[in-house]
Amino acid sequence: MNDFDDWMQACLADVEAELGRHVIATAPAGLGEAMRYGVLDGGKRLRPLLVLAAARSVGGNPVAAMRAACSVELIHAYSLIHDDMPCMDNDVLRRGKPTVHVQFGEAQAMLAGDAMQALAFEVLTPAEGSDGDGDIAPPLQARLCGLLARASGVFGMAGGQAIDLAHVGKPMGETDLQDMHARKTGALLQASVLMGAACGETTPTQWQALSDYGAAIGLAFQVVDDILDVTQASETLGKTAGKDADRNKPTYVSLLGLDGARARARHLHGQAHEALQRAGLVDPTRLRCLADRLVERES
Amino acid sequence: MNDFDDWMQACLADVEAELGRHVIATAPAGLGEAMRYGVLDGGKRLRPLLVLAAARSVGGNPVAAMRAACSVELIHAYSLIHDDMPCMDNDVLRRGKPTVHVQFGEAQAMLAGDAMQALAFEVLTPAEGSDGDGDIAPPLQARLCGLLARASGVFGMAGGQAIDLAHVGKPMGETDLQDMHARKTGALLQASVLMGAACGETTPTQWQALSDYGAAIGLAFQVVDDILDVTQASETLGKTAGKDADRNKPTYVSLLGLDGARARARHLHGQAHEALQRAGLVDPTRLRCLADRLVERES
Repeated sequence: MNDFDDWMQACLADVEAELGRHVIATAPAGLGEAMRYGVLDGGKRLRPLLVLAAARSVGGNPVAAMRAACSVELIHAYSLIHDDMPCMDNDVLRRGKPTVHVQFGEAQAMLAGDAMQALAFEVLTPAEGSDGDGDIAPPLQARLCGLLARASGVFGMAGGQAIDLAHVGKPMGETDLQDMHARKTGALLQASVLMGAACGETTPTQWQALSDYGAAIGLAFQVVDDILDVTQASETLGKTAGKDADRNKPTYVSLLGLDGARARARHLHGQAHEALQRAGLVDPTRLRCLADRLVERES
Repeated sequence: MNDFDDWMQACLADVEAELGRHVIATAPAGLGEAMRYGVLDGGKRLRPLLVLAAARSVGGNPVAAMRAACSVELIHAYSLIHDDMPCMDNDVLRRGKPTVHVQFGEAQAMLAGDAMQALAFEVLTPAEGSDGDGDIAPPLQARLCGLLARASGVFGMAGGQAIDLAHVGKPMGETDLQDMHARKTGALLQASVLMGAACGETTPTQWQALSDYGAAIGLAFQVVDDILDVTQASETLGKTAGKDADRNKPTYVSLLGLDGARARARHLHGQAHEALQRAGLVDPTRLRCLADRLVERES
């Protein structure tokens, strides 16, 4: 596992440096400052790690993969900024810091999120003659943009958010709960794996297996989140604990009980391992370790 | 001019039908409804018309151009939804109808805008095996995504909004005002022209001339907007008139006076014509007529 930790630490440092380069401080009228506050120096960077691990597992282009990793994290970070706003979850604490709208005001928070979504696609499509020109071949740029856009929109994250909003305080069956999470958090986690895979060569079988791996860990992530929301204190999580239960939001724990939710997480963990085996990758170690960490995490 | 009107009416019908196809009503939990309310059945569709006119002027692929036209309008429509929200301009009337957040609530309005930005990039990158597969060659998809993303982010629309926000009630010189508008509205209008041009073949000289044309009409559009804001009634505009002056926002009229602003609009109009002539296009008629209409419009 030491090799994995070394790899992970190196990735985290690289991602941080790259994000710092893309999210420029000189963006006008404080916008850059709000964006940097929202995305730098915080978060587990699970999505970038998935992109980079998947790219490594298929011998993908590491420069393209790093751009893909940053683009996914920008989408994730923008979604957190918007979700925290008063008209959505009205959260004041995120990653142990005041949320972006608390720090910079609502208008700037909304704009910072909007600009970060655009930036995700800018990062994937370096301008001709720019520094990054040549980092990603144009057909790969197009493929990455398509995967990211579909994971972010009505079929993905935004659609899942809308379902979530519509169900606060209302009962929700397991099928609906799963559909909501598959879109809300699952789609972007799965896209992270597939964007990494797109940076290299895969057979259709490998692509499908990696897609299944992504779906399994995407759902496992949410089940573990729901478990941690009731078992951990706010200090450990870096955000307000127990908030979903307080708001009477449907969760895996409310639906299956704590033991049932834990069993579900183990089951999905097994599915992820099975899919990886089926993919027959040259080097699946990092993806396997990430699945393990994701299920065993305590925050 | 009759030919131009016929062309324009046909384009408007096609754009409406295409947008209706892309913004699906079945998106979950009312999200599709809010998105359709925000983008269908309203607006001058200036940006799509610029895309389609520019594409025609260079013999561009009309199917790709139609997707580009829809993507630009989706970005424009999302920006209006977010701008109208209480934390920004707090407008209740847009295109003669209640604004999206008034109709659907703030959370749904924010999500609808977010999902529409993602959808703009989905439309540009049709999935393999989907209906639109083959509409746009992958390198063109990448180029269109890059142009659109840069026009939408910190170097474009979102950056201009941030400058705008930061200057309410504060004095602003002409250089700053121009920089703000070049980003806030100019970048997307210019990108519309260039995205249309990218759908065909251009020489570097033509590309530059079309870029200059786009910059000139982008600025002219804002100058005319500022003039109309003080000379027209709300009913004609379909939105609240006089709001910028009321809010003590810097405008071309407050800076140059009404006559000065009119002279500036004429000057930019002349620059747009000059750039078109320089481009030496086979058929610049539609772009020339659009520049004329834009300056002569009364709403």
